[in-house]
Amino acid sequence: MTLGLATDTDAAWLDRVKTHLDEILIDHAHCERKAAATAMNLIMAYTEDLELVREMSEIVNEELEHFGQVLDILKRRGIRFRRIKPGHYGRELNDLARRQEPHRAVDRLLIAGLIEARSCERFCLLRDGIDDKELAEFYGSLFASEARHHATYTRLAKQFAPADEVETRLAELTTQEAEIIGRPSPLVKMHSC
Amino acid sequence: MTLGLATDTDAAWLDRVKTHLDEILIDHAHCERKAAATAMNLIMAYTEDLELVREMSEIVNEELEHFGQVLDILKRRGIRFRRIKPGHYGRELNDLARRQEPHRAVDRLLIAGLIEARSCERFCLLRDGIDDKELAEFYGSLFASEARHHATYTRLAKQFAPADEVETRLAELTTQEAEIIGRPSPLVKMHSC
Repeated sequence: MTLGLATDTDAAWLDRVKTHLDEILIDHAHCERKAAATAMNLIMAYTEDLELVREMSEIVNEELEHFGQVLDILKRRGIRFRRIKPGHYGRELNDLARRQEPHRAVDRLLIAGLIEARSCERFCLLRDGIDDKELAEFYGSLFASEARHHATYTRLAKQFAPADEVETRLAELTTQEAEIIGRPSPLVKMHSC
Repeated sequence: MTLGLATDTDAAWLDRVKTHLDEILIDHAHCERKAAATAMNLIMAYTEDLELVREMSEIVNEELEHFGQVLDILKRRGIRFRRIKPGHYGRELNDLARRQEPHRAVDRLLIAGLIEARSCERFCLLRDGIDDKELAEFYGSLFASEARHHATYTRLAKQFAPADEVETRLAELTTQEAEIIGRPSPLVKMHSC
């Protein structure tokens, strides 16, 4: 199981995605943009936490770099980058964050880490499963940084609560993540089922 | 007059600041953080504008780098980075942005550019006017990037409206900026009077 996720992605996802690679690229660009915004929002919310600020600054930079790389690929392929209907995945996961601090910080970090873990798993499937050589290689190149971000988020969560509490909460959120990503959706997305 | 600003900073500002350099450093760190957030918010709002996205990505990275540099200086000097009471400058300037697009885009960009211009002017005053060699050098090192950001914001605004309209609006906002920064405040800040 990739990075502690509770479920593996069903093979049907890859089959659906293979015939919609243009849409997946657009969706992927939005994912990178949102990942950068998530890290920036954490800098704004916990700005006195210097370790968090440093780590999030790096993640902002990396995600914006990936965003630019996806935009380059879209441009080379003549695909117009545009707004698209968002799926339920990110919104429903983020809605799980408890309201009160420091629980909120723990949850925001763990949820960001789970999204990175799921992206990591799916990049791996794309790397190994699609015939488009350029894209397969590109997704392979992103794999390592997503895995690293996942680890950073989980480690930072342990600054806000004892490690065993964080692990218990992570187990709960991991179960919920699997439920959310497994729910049928009419959209074909990086984080659809 | 620096970068088209309508007023020069009064010499009294430098005198006040000289005896509060620790607070100015903390305030400056917050300025860099907010400048990064402003550029990120523009990426989120105008994400289909690829030139804007590229330029803002660079600005996000540079502002976060400056933020980290200020945090380093604070750490070396044993000054705790903390939340501080915000002044009226940024809030009142941002409130001037018209609500309707594309006017809103023009105003957000021009206002961001004006803040960069004012920072640039003040960094210059600090570079030339304070005895603390390390800080004087540091502010000198930031001068060029603030001037560049100012130019980028003004140029991008002209993607959203004809150049003459943008210039007219810039003249209005420049007058208002001078009024806002000149208004007395009990706080000693990078953007106080």
